[in-house]
Amino acid sequence: MEILVVNPNRVDGCTRLIHTAARAAAAPGTNVTTLAPRRGPVELTGQCEVLFSAVGVLELIAETPADAVVMAGFGEPGKEAAQELTAAPVLDITECGPLLARTLGARYTIVTSTAAAVPIVEDRLRALRLDAACAGVLASGQSVPDLVDHRQAATKAVVDTVRRAGTEVVVLGCGGMAGLAALVAAATGKIVVDGVSAAIKLAESLGALGLTHARATRPPVTGWPFDD
Amino acid sequence: MEILVVNPNRVDGCTRLIHTAARAAAAPGTNVTTLAPRRGPVELTGQCEVLFSAVGVLELIAETPADAVVMAGFGEPGKEAAQELTAAPVLDITECGPLLARTLGARYTIVTSTAAAVPIVEDRLRALRLDAACAGVLASGQSVPDLVDHRQAATKAVVDTVRRAGTEVVVLGCGGMAGLAALVAAATGKIVVDGVSAAIKLAESLGALGLTHARATRPPVTGWPFDD
Amino acid sequence: MEILVVNPNRVDGCTRLIHTAARAAAAPGTNVTTLAPRRGPVELTGQCEVLFSAVGVLELIAETPADAVVMAGFGEPGKEAAQELTAAPVLDITECGPLLARTLGARYTIVTSTAAAVPIVEDRLRALRLDAACAGVLASGQSVPDLVDHRQAATKAVVDTVRRAGTEVVVLGCGGMAGLAALVAAATGKIVVDGVSAAIKLAESLGALGLTHARATRPPVTGWPFDD
Amino acid sequence: MEILVVNPNRVDGCTRLIHTAARAAAAPGTNVTTLAPRRGPVELTGQCEVLFSAVGVLELIAETPADAVVMAGFGEPGKEAAQELTAAPVLDITECGPLLARTLGARYTIVTSTAAAVPIVEDRLRALRLDAACAGVLASGQSVPDLVDHRQAATKAVVDTVRRAGTEVVVLGCGGMAGLAALVAAATGKIVVDGVSAAIKLAESLGALGLTHARATRPPVTGWPFDD
Amino acid sequence: MEILVVNPNRVDGCTRLIHTAARAAAAPGTNVTTLAPRRGPVELTGQCEVLFSAVGVLELIAETPADAVVMAGFGEPGKEAAQELTAAPVLDITECGPLLARTLGARYTIVTSTAAAVPIVEDRLRALRLDAACAGVLASGQSVPDLVDHRQAATKAVVDTVRRAGTEVVVLGCGGMAGLAALVAAATGKIVVDGVSAAIKLAESLGALGLTHARATRPPVTGWPFDD
Amino acid sequence: MEILVVNPNRVDGCTRLIHTAARAAAAPGTNVTTLAPRRGPVELTGQCEVLFSAVGVLELIAETPADAVVMAGFGEPGKEAAQELTAAPVLDITECGPLLARTLGARYTIVTSTAAAVPIVEDRLRALRLDAACAGVLASGQSVPDLVDHRQAATKAVVDTVRRAGTEVVVLGCGGMAGLAALVAAATGKIVVDGVSAAIKLAESLGALGLTHARATRPPVTGWPFDD
Repeated sequence: MEILVVNPNRVDGCTRLIHTAARAAAAPGTNVTTLAPRRGPVELTGQCEVLFSAVGVLELIAETPADAVVMAGFGEPGKEAAQELTAAPVLDITECGPLLARTLGARYTIVTSTAAAVPIVEDRLRALRLDAACAGVLASGQSVPDLVDHRQAATKAVVDTVRRAGTEVVVLGCGGMAGLAALVAAATGKIVVDGVSAAIKLAESLGALGLTHARATRPPVTGWPFDD
Repeated sequence: MEILVVNPNRVDGCTRLIHTAARAAAAPGTNVTTLAPRRGPVELTGQCEVLFSAVGVLELIAETPADAVVMAGFGEPGKEAAQELTAAPVLDITECGPLLARTLGARYTIVTSTAAAVPIVEDRLRALRLDAACAGVLASGQSVPDLVDHRQAATKAVVDTVRRAGTEVVVLGCGGMAGLAALVAAATGKIVVDGVSAAIKLAESLGALGLTHARATRPPVTGWPFDD
Repeated sequence: MEILVVNPNRVDGCTRLIHTAARAAAAPGTNVTTLAPRRGPVELTGQCEVLFSAVGVLELIAETPADAVVMAGFGEPGKEAAQELTAAPVLDITECGPLLARTLGARYTIVTSTAAAVPIVEDRLRALRLDAACAGVLASGQSVPDLVDHRQAATKAVVDTVRRAGTEVVVLGCGGMAGLAALVAAATGKIVVDGVSAAIKLAESLGALGLTHARATRPPVTGWPFDD
Repeated sequence: MEILVVNPNRVDGCTRLIHTAARAAAAPGTNVTTLAPRRGPVELTGQCEVLFSAVGVLELIAETPADAVVMAGFGEPGKEAAQELTAAPVLDITECGPLLARTLGARYTIVTSTAAAVPIVEDRLRALRLDAACAGVLASGQSVPDLVDHRQAATKAVVDTVRRAGTEVVVLGCGGMAGLAALVAAATGKIVVDGVSAAIKLAESLGALGLTHARATRPPVTGWPFDD
Repeated sequence: MEILVVNPNRVDGCTRLIHTAARAAAAPGTNVTTLAPRRGPVELTGQCEVLFSAVGVLELIAETPADAVVMAGFGEPGKEAAQELTAAPVLDITECGPLLARTLGARYTIVTSTAAAVPIVEDRLRALRLDAACAGVLASGQSVPDLVDHRQAATKAVVDTVRRAGTEVVVLGCGGMAGLAALVAAATGKIVVDGVSAAIKLAESLGALGLTHARATRPPVTGWPFDD
Repeated sequence: MEILVVNPNRVDGCTRLIHTAARAAAAPGTNVTTLAPRRGPVELTGQCEVLFSAVGVLELIAETPADAVVMAGFGEPGKEAAQELTAAPVLDITECGPLLARTLGARYTIVTSTAAAVPIVEDRLRALRLDAACAGVLASGQSVPDLVDHRQAATKAVVDTVRRAGTEVVVLGCGGMAGLAALVAAATGKIVVDGVSAAIKLAESLGALGLTHARATRPPVTGWPFDD
């Protein structure tokens, strides 16, 4: 099975962390390709960049054949659009982390990157109808570059934040936290779910069951912004 | 006061309808410019186009000085990103129609274009925390081109749909329905709120009160997809 | 356009503060008359007074011709009854403050007068289906007489309370706070919405668009308590 | 134990029906006095009358000593104000019907009088935080005078409406339906809860347990509208 | 009237406390029998014991004729099953405490035993659709044996916890707290509702009104686990 | 990996259907054992049987070593208790069907067995905080014996019910529907998720990621009802 993992930012170190976590989660017969968009912002420093990155993410998905697609941005839009571009199932880590966490506890806490991301994640969970089981969203205060370039300090900040969670189950709510779950779980005694790993397993699950989303008949996609 | 109205699609007739409705709603001292994106899809035939159009909409907003911005797509994303690009208040008709309607009745019905738009509008209202006062979303079955090119038949379909609403107050939930409110109200006896008109008045209101959104200090916006 | 603003209490200084704020918000062609009831309690010191004041408020509305009515009590009942007495739109500041605030941020905090008012405002927002976007209701600890007679100390208390708000957007939730918005905004860096000003602009908006509430055919209103 | 039952309207036949139902529900040692306001509207034909009637209801409660007060209007305001006027517990049939019904089934349907009352009851249940267990509000189409003067036809309409309920448990949501519960239950096979009877039993329950509401220290009540 | 009160645990002292509170609440003509299951766990130290105890509770209810049944465990399952075994009304203190409390205030706080019980009670209230009026669930930190064997220290802990409640109305959310309501109310100035007393009064209320739950025709109950 | 699948009823044909579906979903290295309780009811014809069956289910789980446990009853209790008996993850099909369905669409419909099960499933989803994404619960009208013994007629009824769903994604909400997903999907064009298959894949996912629930230190489980 070929899984395309798309990192919405273009921070190389982040793409590598996500790839490592995705491969570690993948079953023997699963091949993982992790890509960042060819165009768009390097870091998602604001809501403009979040929207711009979606164009590059969709471009990648449209041109890369795969049996399943994992979108590795936490709280980013684009899943519904991606489902128009591919017949393969599309897994968003914003959904997959919380969904797998729900099998382990009735409520979970999400630990995300910066304080600015907290209301964005809260609102996105509400849009996704996943808010009822979320006991809170906490910020570790670490941006994606922090998480990539200052791994040790960032990990400590994540560990400290996870300790403050009021629930046993915690979801790591940032692609840049990929690979930290086991370490943070060991340090805190919490049950820690990483969205990228969760999405890989859910992609394999859907693949094995032959399930994918509904595809309405639609005219060819037009209007890519860079075509004009 | 200069209000920039942005039509997310590039259907010329739709831009003209929106402009006419916006000007009709504007106060004497208000100047309205209505534009469609220079790049992106002509029609928003799917979720890909919805996201692509946001890039062109944001480009317009970034380059067009104005005292207020009205985003004339119902259910489209991008408001939060637009708020990063301008110090002027940004009014989304998806919010303004329902908000003005709320002053006229505790609950309202939204009449939108096609059946495919219904769950999208429902989910967007939930994300905007405006779902509690919405008694239902009904589809008139008319696409934007229908509304522009077959005005008479489309109007009849909208009238028929508004009649089915279980509430006295109805919001026209599509930019292409701009200009129909008075006619539909007369034909149905309902109170009909048009999102574009509502947004113009709310833009003027915020302007008069000197209110605009908070602007976090942020680095310059980068990563426009067409720059790559 | 003639706007009748009704202060539900009979504290003269409060009526004057409301009037000043209303006139400051009004457009050139708008004439504002601010009145307090001829009968009923001076201060709304409890739930009995809140209900009694509604009678005098309704009496004023029934006998005063106007193009729009603004009810300047935050959390008080009577809007639906007022809509039976006049064909003009009726704007309640309890709705208008939060509605205008919603255009500036997805969530807002309400700063109200005394601690006793907090659950009343919370319950009223729930009844109005405006609770989902409210991040919290905080009490400044200032009663209406405090706000009128000890303006400086009261303002300081409001500023301190607004600083504690967890959101960028704050609604002043008391008629006695009319006129404080700009000052509090300057002192706190928050976006501060005053309900009276918001209601004036929404009244003008509805007037300009020719919108008003539905009026069911009903028999003449009878049973004014003072008639017996 | 002395229970004061207050009918918010002044339709004599309705007061009598309520009194009969209240007495039938009362325990041997309970004395029931049922009164209508001395002032205010005869019928509650609109929201103005609903507010006006509250003044007369409060006047009655203030001047009539009792060990418990039952407010026999379904959906009417005033309970919180009444709690300021008496140390005795105040039972509103709008709460008591649904609360007792909840012990008999997880969800209940409310059958109320006219179609105009349906959204009023829905909104009042939301304000009272009793909406989650309500599966629907249905109108029998019968006004209070219909229920009093054309008892047989009205009963048939109520029976027909109860039959349409999607739940086993039904609450009669109108004081004018007092006394119909057993008959409607026999005709429909549903479990039918009458709010007046429920309130009497809850009043006795609170009395027996020595429970009443909290009474904040408050200044004397002033501002009765008829004093001016 | 014969009321069967069932204590889900088999701690004798707890059964006695519940019986004393139930008898104190009962009207003169009411006879109360309080029993603990003949089989099952002594203490409900976990979720397994909670389920096991339900079997013994149901066995008791099936074999003990009564005019009403009170289930004296707070948060325990089994009410719906019990309703299949008896034509008499079944009152669960988890419902009755909050329902009676609602007549005394729009919101209440629940004080339960141990911290582990807090999410269980929160989830149970959500299942029962009673969560909207609950302002919070606080743990006193006292287990049932603590409450039985160290009454004085336990009472002090309950008093301290009740003082921390943000509402005037508090529900004692544990069968082992039966009998403490008056004492805790006196010590704290709060309005304190005991679930067992509330259930007795509601049982008598339903009995007096001749109300009970719906009984679907069902085949004889089979599969008692101890029969195999 | 060893997965223990537990059918809560003791209908042999149902256990076989579940086993076949579970094995079909299992990955090559996964071994599936499907068992029914040794004690308890044959069919879950009521809420008593639902509770009784939990005892037998828990007994099986306590005595059968496994790397993961799948509880194959839809809407049945016991998951939290099972988590006390085993260190292996416990997957309830009531959760797993909806969770996997959420990756394929924002909302899903659940098709369950009999009309009596509809409110039970609705309430259970609410308790599990999975209600927001559920667009409705429909009954096929088929009991477990119908599904086992009259497979063709039952399948037709399920197909007809799935066709009535208002969403693209449908969850089969009954263990006895195990094995029907592909067939029903082919016949209806809907996306059909079977809870048993979903649970197997989620069990494998958790196993691969080394995730399981939190286990509070607790005293040994006591009070098995059949021990007395």
